[in-house]
Order: sequence, then C-alpha cells, then structure tokens
Amino acid sequence: MNEDNLWWLKEDGYEARLHKHYEGLFTQGNGYMHVRGSFEEGCSDAPQDEEYLRFPDNVTLEKPRHPKSKQGTFIPGIVAQHPLLKEEIVNLPYMLGLEFRSGDEALDMDRCRISGYSRRLDLRDGRLHRSFLWETKEGMQLKCTYSRYLSMADTHLCIQQVQLEVLAGEGRLEVKAALRADVRTNGMNHFARVVPSAEPGDCISLETLTEEGNRIFMLSALEASEAVNWQAGHTPVMAALRGECRLNTGDRLTVSKLTAVTTDRDMEEGTVRDRALAQLSRARKLGREQLYNRHADCWKRKWQAADIRIKGDDAAQLSVRASIYHLIRSNREEDDRVAICAKGYAGEAYFGRYFWDTEINLLPFFLHTHPQAARNLLLFRYNTLDGARRNAQKYGYRGARYAWESSISGEEQCANWQYADHEIHITADIVYALYHYVRATGDDEFLERYAVDILVETARYWCDRVDWNREGEGELLSVMGPDEYLPFTRNNAFTNRMVKFSLEQTVACLDSLEDGKRDSYAAAAARLDIRPGERERFRHTAEKLRLPYDSRSDIVPQSDDFDSYAEVDFASVWTDRSRPFGHFISQERNYRSKALKQADVLELMMLFPQEFTRAQLKASYAYYEPITTHDSSLSAAVHGIVASWLGQKEAAGAFLQRVMDIDLSAEKKGAAEGIHIANCGGLWQLIVYGFAGLKSAMWSESIELEPRLPEGWEKLSFTLAWRGERYQITVNPDTYEVQKLNGGNLVAGTTV
Amino acid sequence: MNEDNLWWLKEDGYEARLHKHYEGLFTQGNGYMHVRGSFEEGCSDAPQDEEYLRFPDNVTLEKPRHPKSKQGTFIPGIVAQHPLLKEEIVNLPYMLGLEFRSGDEALDMDRCRISGYSRRLDLRDGRLHRSFLWETKEGMQLKCTYSRYLSMADTHLCIQQVQLEVLAGEGRLEVKAALRADVRTNGMNHFARVVPSAEPGDCISLETLTEEGNRIFMLSALEASEAVNWQAGHTPVMAALRGECRLNTGDRLTVSKLTAVTTDRDMEEGTVRDRALAQLSRARKLGREQLYNRHADCWKRKWQAADIRIKGDDAAQLSVRASIYHLIRSNREEDDRVAICAKGYAGEAYFGRYFWDTEINLLPFFLHTHPQAARNLLLFRYNTLDGARRNAQKYGYRGARYAWESSISGEEQCANWQYADHEIHITADIVYALYHYVRATGDDEFLERYAVDILVETARYWCDRVDWNREGEGELLSVMGPDEYLPFTRNNAFTNRMVKFSLEQTVACLDSLEDGKRDSYAAAAARLDIRPGERERFRHTAEKLRLPYDSRSDIVPQSDDFDSYAEVDFASVWTDRSRPFGHFISQERNYRSKALKQADVLELMMLFPQEFTRAQLKASYAYYEPITTHDSSLSAAVHGIVASWLGQKEAAGAFLQRVMDIDLSAEKKGAAEGIHIANCGGLWQLIVYGFAGLKSAMWSESIELEPRLPEGWEKLSFTLAWRGERYQITVNPDTYEVQKLNGGNLVAGTTV
Repeated sequence: MNEDNLWWLKEDGYEARLHKHYEGLFTQGNGYMHVRGSFEEGCSDAPQDEEYLRFPDNVTLEKPRHPKSKQGTFIPGIVAQHPLLKEEIVNLPYMLGLEFRSGDEALDMDRCRISGYSRRLDLRDGRLHRSFLWETKEGMQLKCTYSRYLSMADTHLCIQQVQLEVLAGEGRLEVKAALRADVRTNGMNHFARVVPSAEPGDCISLETLTEEGNRIFMLSALEASEAVNWQAGHTPVMAALRGECRLNTGDRLTVSKLTAVTTDRDMEEGTVRDRALAQLSRARKLGREQLYNRHADCWKRKWQAADIRIKGDDAAQLSVRASIYHLIRSNREEDDRVAICAKGYAGEAYFGRYFWDTEINLLPFFLHTHPQAARNLLLFRYNTLDGARRNAQKYGYRGARYAWESSISGEEQCANWQYADHEIHITADIVYALYHYVRATGDDEFLERYAVDILVETARYWCDRVDWNREGEGELLSVMGPDEYLPFTRNNAFTNRMVKFSLEQTVACLDSLEDGKRDSYAAAAARLDIRPGERERFRHTAEKLRLPYDSRSDIVPQSDDFDSYAEVDFASVWTDRSRPFGHFISQERNYRSKALKQADVLELMMLFPQEFTRAQLKASYAYYEPITTHDSSLSAAVHGIVASWLGQKEAAGAFLQRVMDIDLSAEKKGAAEGIHIANCGGLWQLIVYGFAGLKSAMWSESIELEPRLPEGWEKLSFTLAWRGERYQITVNPDTYEVQKLNGGNLVAGTTV
Repeated sequence: MNEDNLWWLKEDGYEARLHKHYEGLFTQGNGYMHVRGSFEEGCSDAPQDEEYLRFPDNVTLEKPRHPKSKQGTFIPGIVAQHPLLKEEIVNLPYMLGLEFRSGDEALDMDRCRISGYSRRLDLRDGRLHRSFLWETKEGMQLKCTYSRYLSMADTHLCIQQVQLEVLAGEGRLEVKAALRADVRTNGMNHFARVVPSAEPGDCISLETLTEEGNRIFMLSALEASEAVNWQAGHTPVMAALRGECRLNTGDRLTVSKLTAVTTDRDMEEGTVRDRALAQLSRARKLGREQLYNRHADCWKRKWQAADIRIKGDDAAQLSVRASIYHLIRSNREEDDRVAICAKGYAGEAYFGRYFWDTEINLLPFFLHTHPQAARNLLLFRYNTLDGARRNAQKYGYRGARYAWESSISGEEQCANWQYADHEIHITADIVYALYHYVRATGDDEFLERYAVDILVETARYWCDRVDWNREGEGELLSVMGPDEYLPFTRNNAFTNRMVKFSLEQTVACLDSLEDGKRDSYAAAAARLDIRPGERERFRHTAEKLRLPYDSRSDIVPQSDDFDSYAEVDFASVWTDRSRPFGHFISQERNYRSKALKQADVLELMMLFPQEFTRAQLKASYAYYEPITTHDSSLSAAVHGIVASWLGQKEAAGAFLQRVMDIDLSAEKKGAAEGIHIANCGGLWQLIVYGFAGLKSAMWSESIELEPRLPEGWEKLSFTLAWRGERYQITVNPDTYEVQKLNGGNLVAGTTV
C-alpha cells in the first residue's frame, strides 16, 4: 500500500448528502483558528445566514438544521450569548471565499458538469486538496486544483491556492474572492457591526465587531497568474474583489489568496488592523515556499512526538492518525485561557464549551505526547476557578464547583438542568486530572502553586454537597453519573469514588505541604483563608463518604439505588440498532430504566484499575455491557479497553471498529456536526492503555506494559513522554520493547 | 356591621404598588369572557404592548414582568402558540378604554390630583365601582363615578358607565372611547390582523384575527348625556371615538359604553359581525335597566345555590364569598369545550391551562352547588380524550394519559419536563372525579355513556406505565406526586393509591356493565376495541400495584424511597418565612431534600379518609406538616381540613387565615397574576368538609356531618345539592340541622 494512503483522508466523488460529514472531517486548524472543510465557492441551496431560534434539546436526538452544508470558522475564546442556549462560540465570517463563473454559470459541485472529483486531507501537514474536471456550458474543459491550509507556524495565516488549467475550449472566466459575514451561529446573528473595505494592493479586509465587543479583522491579499483586473464588489456584509480574464486551451490560471486574521483577544499588542497588515507583509516577504516549509516543520515535530504506527491494520493506522491530527489541531498551544471544546472546534454543536472530556478523555494523549499542552489545559481550570466559585455560590455552597459545560470564564452554560445540576463528577474529575498530570510529568511544583487552590476550594464544595445518613455515612444524593440516562441516583459509584479521591488528595496535599514546605503551606493557607478544623472536615468527609460497593460483590452496582430501576426488554424496544437507543424510548421511560447511555462502572474501573479484582472487572463488564446503549461517543473506547484487559479480543476489536466509525463513517455522517474529540482521545487510550496495556501514570512510577494486540496487528509503535523523558515503545505480537530516546534500551519484555 | 361589607371587596385609596393585585382580585367575568380590574384609562408607565421572550421557569420563583399593571381580557378557548411556553390563552384587545382629558392633562390615577379614591367590587352582582375627586390643573373639581359589569345573562355584553359631576370650576373636557389591540400575551403579539372601524350611530368596532385563525369582533356603542360630537380617531391597532364638551359647575356628564363581543368559536350561527350587531341592537332595545335586571337575576340564582353564610367571622364571610364569586365567574356554563384554568381567567400566569385543580380542588364546589357545571367540567375531559391518547402515544404507551397542563385539545403543554413527564397522578385524579360526580349526583348514565371510555383508555396507559419488581408487585417509578419538590420518587403513596382506585373502578365498571347492561357493555367493547384478557390485565395490575404503606405504620411514607432523602435544617435555610421556601434553596438541593412543597400524604388521606386510622392521620400530620413549606397554594386548605378533623382548632384557624390571605392579602399582592382558583375551591372544602365535617359523597350515600366550627363562629349555613335534591345545612356551635329544600327536616343532630 502506498504510504500516502496511511496519511490521507479521502473523498472520492461528490455526494451532496455526505458533504456536511466531510466538512466536519476535513476541518483544518492550528489551535488559534479552525475552519470546516467547506468549498471555497459554497454550496447551492445551503444559505449560511438563515435566522432561527434554536432551543435547548437532547443533543443525541436533536435533528440538526443545515442538512447539506454548514460552514464554520472558529477562534477559541470568541464567544457570544444565545438567549436560550447561553454562551456559544461565534461562527465567524467565512474567509475562504473563492468563486468562479463562466458566463452565467457559477461553479457549483451540485449544478455543474463535474467529473473526477476528489478531495484529500493530508494529515501530515493538514493541507486540504481538491481536484475535478469542470466542463462548462460554454464548452471549456477546466481542470481545477485547490489547496489550502492554516499555518501551524504562523497561526494567523490562511493560505489558499487554486489552479485552473484549460484542457479544451476557450472563454472568459470570472473570479470572485470574498470575506463574508452573512454567517449565523445556531441561527443567531452575533455581529454588531461589519465593515468591508478595499485595501491597497489587491487586498480586501473585513472588520467585525461582535455583540460581546470582540473585534475580528480579516485581511486577504489576492494574486493571479493572469491579469484579472481586480475590482471591489462589496456588500454591507461582504468584502469582495472580482476580476476576469480570457483563457485559451493550454492556459493555466493560478489564483492565490493569503489571509491574515487577528482579534482583540490575541495576546499580541497593537490594533487588530496593524497586526493583520504586519502579518500579511511578513508572509509576503517570506514567500509561499518558506511559509509552507515553516508550517510543515511544525507539523513534522508534532507528529514525531505523537504518531502511532500500526503495521497490519491500515484502517486503524489511518483512523488513529485522523484522531491525532484533530487532537493536535484542536489544541491551542500556550494559551491557557481556552481548552479543547467537545466538538474540537469543528462545528456549532455543543457550542464550543468545555466538558469533562478534556480531563478524562483528552488529557492522557497530551500528557504523553506534549506535556506542556496538558499543563495549559489544566491551567485553564485554574484560571476559571473564580467561575467555579460563582457556580458553587449560585447553588448556595461554599468553595468551587466546576461547570458541567464550562464557558470561557468557568461558569455553567448547560441549558438542561438535569445535567447542569446533577452531573457533578466533573469537579472531582478535574482533581483526578491534576494528579494525573503531576504523576505523569513529575511537575510537583504545579501542585503547590496551582492545584492546591482547586483542591481546597472543591473540597469545600463537596463538604457542603454531602448529606449525612443515620449511620454517619456521607452520601451524594440526586446525582447523574457518567451514565446520563439516570440523572437522579443515590451514591453513584463513579462519582463517590472520584469525590473520595479528590478529598483524600486534598488532605494529603495539605498534610505534605505543612510537613515539607511550610512556606508554601502558609501562603496557601493565607491565600485560601484555610480555617482551623477545615482539613479535619475534609478528612472526615473523605473517610465517611459512602461507596456503594465493596470487595464482596463481583458486580459493582452503578449506584445504591440501581437495583430499583426497571428492566428493559431491549429486543422489543430497540428495533433498529443502527440508530441510537434514545430514539426508541421516551426520556421519561429512559430515566427509570436500566439502560445505560455509556460506561459508568467500567469508567470507574478504568480509572482505578488497582482497586478492583479481575473477577469484579469481568462480572461488571458482563453485566453492564449488554445493558449499555453506547449512545454516547465516550462509551466505546472505555469498553474496548476493558474488553482488551479481559482478553476478549473479538469484543475489543468490535469496539475498536466502533470507535473508528464514530467520526470516520461517511454513511453515519459521523463528523457532520463536528469532531468527537473525546473519542479521538479515546482511540489513543484504547491503543495505548488497551492494546499496549500501558499502566496509567496515576498508578505506576515507571512504564509498565501488558500488551494484547488485536488480531492481525503485526507491530504497534509510538513514543511516550514520561516524567520528563521520551521513550520509544514497540510492541510485537510476542515481544515488546521500551527504548529511551537519546539513550539505550531500558526494559524489554514479553507480551502476556 | 353593614351587610354590604360582607359582599364588597374594597380598595380605599390608590397605591400604585398594589394596583396589579387589585387588577387580579377585581376580575369580572361571566364564564364567556373575563376582564381584569384595570382602569378604563389605563395606567402611566405601564405599557401593555411590550414585546419580550418569556422563558419557561419555575412559577413559584419567577419574577413576573409588568410590576404595575397588566390588563387582561380572556375568552376561554381563544388560544395561540408561544414558541417556548406552548399553548397560551390570548390576552385579547382591551375593550374598556374610556379616557378623559382636561386641556393637556390626561386623567391618570398616578399623575393627577386625586382624592377620595375608592373601589368596590360588589360580589352580589359582579359590578365594579370606582369613585374619586379629580382636581384638574385648570381648576375644575370633578366627582368621577365609574361602574361596569359583564352581563351574566347576556354574556356577550360589557356594560360601562362613567359620570363626571362638576363640583367647582368649569372648562372643556375631552373624552376618548377605545378598543385597543396594543396588547401582548406574555410579551408575544398573537394578532395577525387588526381592523378598526367606525360604525353607524356613534359606534366603533375592532375585528381581530389571531395567528391561530380565530376571529374576535368587538363592537361598542357610545352615548353621552351632553353633546360631545364624536369623531373617529383610529390608529392601526385601535378603534376610537373622541369627543369633547364644555362643562360648568353643577353639570353632570354621563358617558355610557356598551360593548358586544363575539368570536368565531361561539356556538351561535352567523358571522361575528352580524352577531355582534344583533347583540348590540337587542341590548339597546332592552335598555339599561332591563339589561341590569336580567344580569342581577342570574347572579341572584347563582348565589342562592352557592352562598355560604358565616356568623361571627366577617373576614371569613367576605373571603368565602370572594372565592365563590370567582368560582361562579370562572365557570363557562354549558360549554364543555373548556374548563376552568389555574388562574381563573384572571391573568396570564399558567397560560390559561387546565390542571388537576379542576378535578380535585374545584369539582366538589360545583358538585354540590351546580351539578350540571360539574358534569360539563368532566365532559371537557371526555372531549379531550383524543388529546390524552396522543399524549400516551408520544411516550410510547397505549391508551390515554391526561396532560399535566392541558391545552384545549387535551395535549400536554407543560414546558418543564419534570412535571410533564413525572406528575402522572392527574390521569387517575380524573377517574376519581368521575366517580365523585356519579356518586354525588346519582347520574349513573354518565358512567356508561362517557366515563367508561376514560376508564378503559387510562387503564391501558397505567398497565403500560407500571414496572414489575422481583416480588411480582407493580411499581410506579420516577414519579412526582402532588409534592412537586420531589420529582423522581418510587411508588408515591398518593399516586399509587389513586391509580389502584382507578384500575379497580375500571374493572368494577366493566364487570357491572357486563352483568347488568349487556347492550351498553357490547357497545363500549366495540367502541373501545376491548380485547379478551384486557380486563384481567387491569384486574391483575390493580391487585398487584404496590402501596408503600400499610396499617402497621402510623406515619404513611410519601414514597418508598422517601426515607433516603436528606433532612433539611429549616431554621438555617429558610431565614424569612414571609417568602416561599423555594427562594432560599436551589432546585438541585430541593430535589433531594425532605422539604415538601405541599400536602401529599395528607391529600391522600383527605381523599380516602376511611382507609386510614385516626392514629395514622394524626402521626402523618405531625410528621409532614413541619417539613411542608406550603409553597403551593393547594396546600393550606388540605392542611386546614386535616387539622380540623384532628380537632386542632388553633392550627385549623391558622390555615383558614392562610387560605384567606392567598388571594385577598394586598400586602402579599396575592391576586396580582390572577386568582388562585384552586384555593377558592379549597376554602369551600375547608368550610364544608373541614368545619362542617361533611363526609365526602365519594364515601357516603347520605349527608353525614361531623362539624367542628372554628372559635368565634356562631353559625354556618349553606345549601347543598346531593343526589338530585337540595338541602339547607345549618351548623351552630352545638347543634346542626339538615333540611331538604322544598321539604321538611330530614336529620337533626348534635355537633361532636
């Protein structure tokens, strides 16, 4: 097989019904900005400025609008208020506009005579290529080739090029390059003012002021290989240059568009306009080739640290690379004011908000490929601690309570109260992640400098949130665990264990600071106004918090009241397994039934593997898997890992397929509304924790592997950052090897 | 005390902050239409056409808009769709407009020099009177006297009169009479088209077409005692006549406005316009005096059947008359396409929808004062059975499920799913009410003709809704009982008992029809497609449905899981008892705490008194009352009844005061958003079931009393319709008397 095929996401032949899926899948980005894989010329019958009121709804079941195409341009941190849905990331003006016209025929993938259509997203460098043959009504045969990328090195820049080669015929061709603000976010217009302008030297600009007061400046320079005589053609919501030229057989017209994007939220000094001008001028000085080389070098370094190589399973190879590509792209390096939103900045769904996905699903990838990025993701939580304090206060509690759906300031944005009020484990998940980071990196200073504030403030919240029963046990009542199909359970095993861990670590952290770093302790005590007896309260609550399971029962109950829920006859209810279970049952019935949305007890066992016996793991998997609907994209990877640990290769392989399909399956239009970025992290975990059997850094000082490769996998290799060093891991069906990079072999063992 | 004071609701002196309360309290109506007690001239700084998007929210806690004044004109059945709140009764154009102006000074209660302001709502005939002295800037002293009523005999007519007497000074006075469509319902404009017109003979009309296609025609005839030279002064949303005249000291100007209102939903034939013209012409022929006499006669007959007389407690006397007034007014006689909405058509709150209030809180009053009205209320449920079928289907169940908040077609309108999905007892409450009606009236034919359809269809729903536990018991999981502060309980005692009753009666009804009325049975079986074995399924479910209590426990648990909820330290949470408890606790905490919104177990005991021992009643009252917040207006009356049954006179008296305050307390602005019509029915029940100790017709063939009059009550008397006869009940502190009307004494006993 051609090596390229292991790096290319491909679309061969255009199908309108799949277009929105590819728009999501082909999302390009560089951390600073992201743009969906839409066509430069847009799409017929798919207006982007339709205004409507979107209502809070069940995301699994909601039928999204815009069936054919939704463009998307996102800059993390640029958000606005929706009257019903609360804070949402703003879909910014569309910067990619490049339209062609032959006579009265506008180039359009649906309406023109197009053949040989093909698109490739090259995962190595994030460039998107399109090519096709256009036979115009006027009789020209035009070979059209597009490419574009957002520079990973110069993150304010978008570089586009189109080449039209006349294979036969001749005629005039019109070109229009545009920056368009006729864009709505979930049906809302968030633009308070739009100013399109012509700029010197075949340039156009579009300055946009959002309702929230953010300023976005887009500046495009146009170049053409033929004289096209650019003329401004603005509208109130669009900056545009139009031009035309005459082409004969054999001619080639190349149009380049170089766009600089700046906002008032950038960390650089200066006006948005000045900075965009400077970016553009610098880029032009560098020239196309150098610009590309800088960009490609960045991607190369990222792939060196992050690539996973699989021999013997090309589908898995390509799929894991697609996941890693989106993980790398979604992460804003060195900006700790944002994290990675649930759809990986590849769609309007989930409104650009931050969930527990970051800590539990994404963090391990970054911990072991790019620890600095992991640190920044956690600093986002530190930076939004005040928002978490306001959340706690709003509910009448002391301390800090992280939002189920976090705004960029940390405040709760979830419009459905059953999640916002009851899915409280997020607050403990963040503490788990802080420890995971510290243990995987050895960055102990992070604990005393940042984490301790989160620990103490969240411990205060938990102490207020706990109720006490007659036996003197602390309880967490009315809780939604990871399984979102049971919103009001009593003592959810996952949640209570995570909270207990969180409180235990708070006490341990304060104990150890007081013992070993008295200055640090004194500073924290003063900063956080730690009162006498508070630590004892944390300790008591940690000790007495009830766990609804013990070593005597093999099946760990999901919650104290789990047994009281109704059994579901899946065969009679879920009559079409190709669609989510949620489509076949009312929420009312769902909420009282033993039908899980996703892994809950198994998620717990994955995070605390050392606390459960193999019998418990096996019995719980056997019990829960058949009653789990996997309606959440977070479920399959966890199940795959557990199946792999249990040596159930067939099941693990089936879950691997499921994980791969979540975004990649065109038939299921998996990526239409954005990338399931948590599942991307899940695939990485399935391979590293599941198949390579890496023992989590939470529970192991050194790299320990217990590999179980899927059938057919001849070799699996990847690099791993671990406590300040990098290692090369190579797993063969019968042996494995851990090699320190820039050093010799450390460990070599045999697969189990 | 002047006898009038026992019939007049009074407002002495105008206070802007109380105005909205009096608007609600002084609502006038005749079943066909209702109008809030707003001023003819409107109110400064209180625009009625403000547009905004009202969101679904917690009604107890929501801060209503329009702090100063909200006019309201409602015709039951004229509804429209709100994009977020679903179906709402439309606030129709304001027909009362009569404005006066002296020079550039518009008459306004806030801005003019007003003295001696007084309003009286005469409960005997529903007329509203206003009088005050207006000293104009130009130096006139005008004694102003207003009166108005909606005719109870000619229900399409509104009759208004204003008299201005010049006590001193002289000058010109301008009059404007208007029909205004600048009205919004909860911020929404539901009017698709408004056509204001001048009509022959000093008349104006306003035809309004709603979004839903309903047509409302208002036609007003103006008359003045002085020549005022009426001139049309329409705007696109207002029909108006303006005129002016010169007045000297001693002059009296009388302006009369007679308005006919028709809609396309009326049961009469003909266009709305023709019918309004006919109404008006007939009214003018009858003349003012005859019009009034016809109206007053109607009210007189209603009071003869419904009045309760209390000697020794004038406050209670006036209060119960206010309640009865609103009950009579709210009821649309002989129109079984509507029922009585939760705010008694006296405000926009609750959107004009129908709740369980109708069956449980209002029905007893109508059963025993106006049985035909009770029958019509139940026929509304029969007529909306198809809506209930659609509700069941929507959830995936067979049969019929009544809506928690019913539209006029029976479909669920509640925008908050925790109520809509989980407060299922309404479906059984309706069956309880059907039986209550049949037992109180002896109208057995109603059962086989109408009720059987509801019985069978709701039984089918219950059989699908029940889950089965390992012990073979039927369970109702995830249920909100009457106590709306616990939405997800297991086997709520009230709900399960009501459902068991409902299923038992379904089986009994089918058994008895098959035994005694084979034709009726065959017709029902065919109509309802009753399958073999279905009745056995009903019987089995009725038998096996679990009740979470038995005779061994004195405290009846509210639900199987009630004990697992958290205790609340009320003293530390509820720091200001003058405001609802709900203001002091988050919904999240509330939903897991033992803090009841309202009577739940006690409601059960009130409806099934014969099934509980006195020890259970006493212990349950002692346990639940202290943890009940009474945040619902349905709670106090039930508690008062139980306290009275237990001989706890002081507590019963305190609940009586609470019940009275709910609408009447100006300080609490009780009636601002409308009348708590269920509490009006509750007051009637507190007096009849509580103080007179009437044994419910559900459980007694004949009238049985066990009176316990409150301290100070010297005499209580009322009439009672009972199984086709009417009785006069007289209760003295030590004796009581039951006298058949148009007949001799039947029973005379001694109070216990």
